[in-house]
Amino acid sequence: MAQKTASKKSAAKPAGTRERIIQRSIALFNRSGLQHVAIDHIASDLKISPGNLTYHFKRKRDLILATLDVLQRRLHTALERTTTTTSAEESAAYLISIFRTFWDFRFFFNALTFLLTNDAQLRKEYFEFRDRSLQAIEDDMRQLRDRGFFHDVPPPNTFRLLAENMWSQWLDWLRMQQMKNPLARTPALYECALHHWSLSQPFLDPDFAVELLNAYRSQLKVKNA
Amino acid sequence: MAQKTASKKSAAKPAGTRERIIQRSIALFNRSGLQHVAIDHIASDLKISPGNLTYHFKRKRDLILATLDVLQRRLHTALERTTTTTSAEESAAYLISIFRTFWDFRFFFNALTFLLTNDAQLRKEYFEFRDRSLQAIEDDMRQLRDRGFFHDVPPPNTFRLLAENMWSQWLDWLRMQQMKNPLARTPALYECALHHWSLSQPFLDPDFAVELLNAYRSQLKVKNA
Repeated sequence: MAQKTASKKSAAKPAGTRERIIQRSIALFNRSGLQHVAIDHIASDLKISPGNLTYHFKRKRDLILATLDVLQRRLHTALERTTTTTSAEESAAYLISIFRTFWDFRFFFNALTFLLTNDAQLRKEYFEFRDRSLQAIEDDMRQLRDRGFFHDVPPPNTFRLLAENMWSQWLDWLRMQQMKNPLARTPALYECALHHWSLSQPFLDPDFAVELLNAYRSQLKVKNA
Repeated sequence: MAQKTASKKSAAKPAGTRERIIQRSIALFNRSGLQHVAIDHIASDLKISPGNLTYHFKRKRDLILATLDVLQRRLHTALERTTTTTSAEESAAYLISIFRTFWDFRFFFNALTFLLTNDAQLRKEYFEFRDRSLQAIEDDMRQLRDRGFFHDVPPPNTFRLLAENMWSQWLDWLRMQQMKNPLARTPALYECALHHWSLSQPFLDPDFAVELLNAYRSQLKVKNA
């Protein structure tokens, strides 16, 4: 809306500012925790007036919703395989990019209870987003199964239950990182990869399972244990 | 300490008050969230003076530590099997009692990031407690394996990784309950049981896996899906 009402001459600038505010907010939220970053602090950090910021985002909640949009696009992209060939190397890269997306938006996942408990609209949006993501994870498992890398889970166990447990593992990994070292700038990706691998290992082709773990180690530069 | 300095005559009463404060705090923390319950509110709810409360617990943190002691004892007890015979019925009852303990102390797990991020001592205590609990979960899996109900996990997967993923699943279940319905008084235990079952299913003897799920359904009065 803001872009449409701006004059032609200055059309580029508001869009740039809006994007800068979102990106800087994500960085500040990750660094200090969503609850501890006031909207005025974001403005002063960006060296813009509070009025300029509220022109783009009336309330902090609007800004949070905008960062959630970015997260949704990023995770949607991460959840789509870029190639149709499947190898352990490609699978490891694919999964690492998912873990990294969670890390890049850790402020959001780590503040979930705070954000959603009293906000029905945001809660609805989060659960829909979670649902679409879980569906994409399930679809990926089915594709791997069709190519012989993944076994079917024996009923009444389901791909859905497995995907939901993966989601729990990712979120708890983020929380553990936050508790152990809230100021950490680099994620302990191998810790996440190893726990994720442990969840899927029973259903993976045994050779593929070993190759996948080795691919993680090589891509994340982890020395063999 | 407080009990030791009290006179013989009134020795029983301070102990009773201390215990009442702890039990009431757990209830109030669960109902409103740890962050939203002030120490004065606990005193007025118990119809005791703030001075009486601070005689037992100088600061809110001391009270939180006391509730953590109760949690540790409760979970320690829950994690010990009461019988040496293993059946699906007994296993379901054992696991439900663990899930219920998590639920009864949900205020603590749901406030973990808030509590531990800036409190090194409490963080140390939590991670030691988590470690002891994970060890007990691992030991239980080994005992089930020795009795033929549980398969060995193929290396480099480990019982430890599986136990850590179970911990993640329990904590995320609590968080989901909090987000979906913060005022809920009764836990969705079958949801927790089903996800936990999904994690261990690949390693369970197939007949035992089916019996265990049926035992959950019957003990939690869930109609067959």
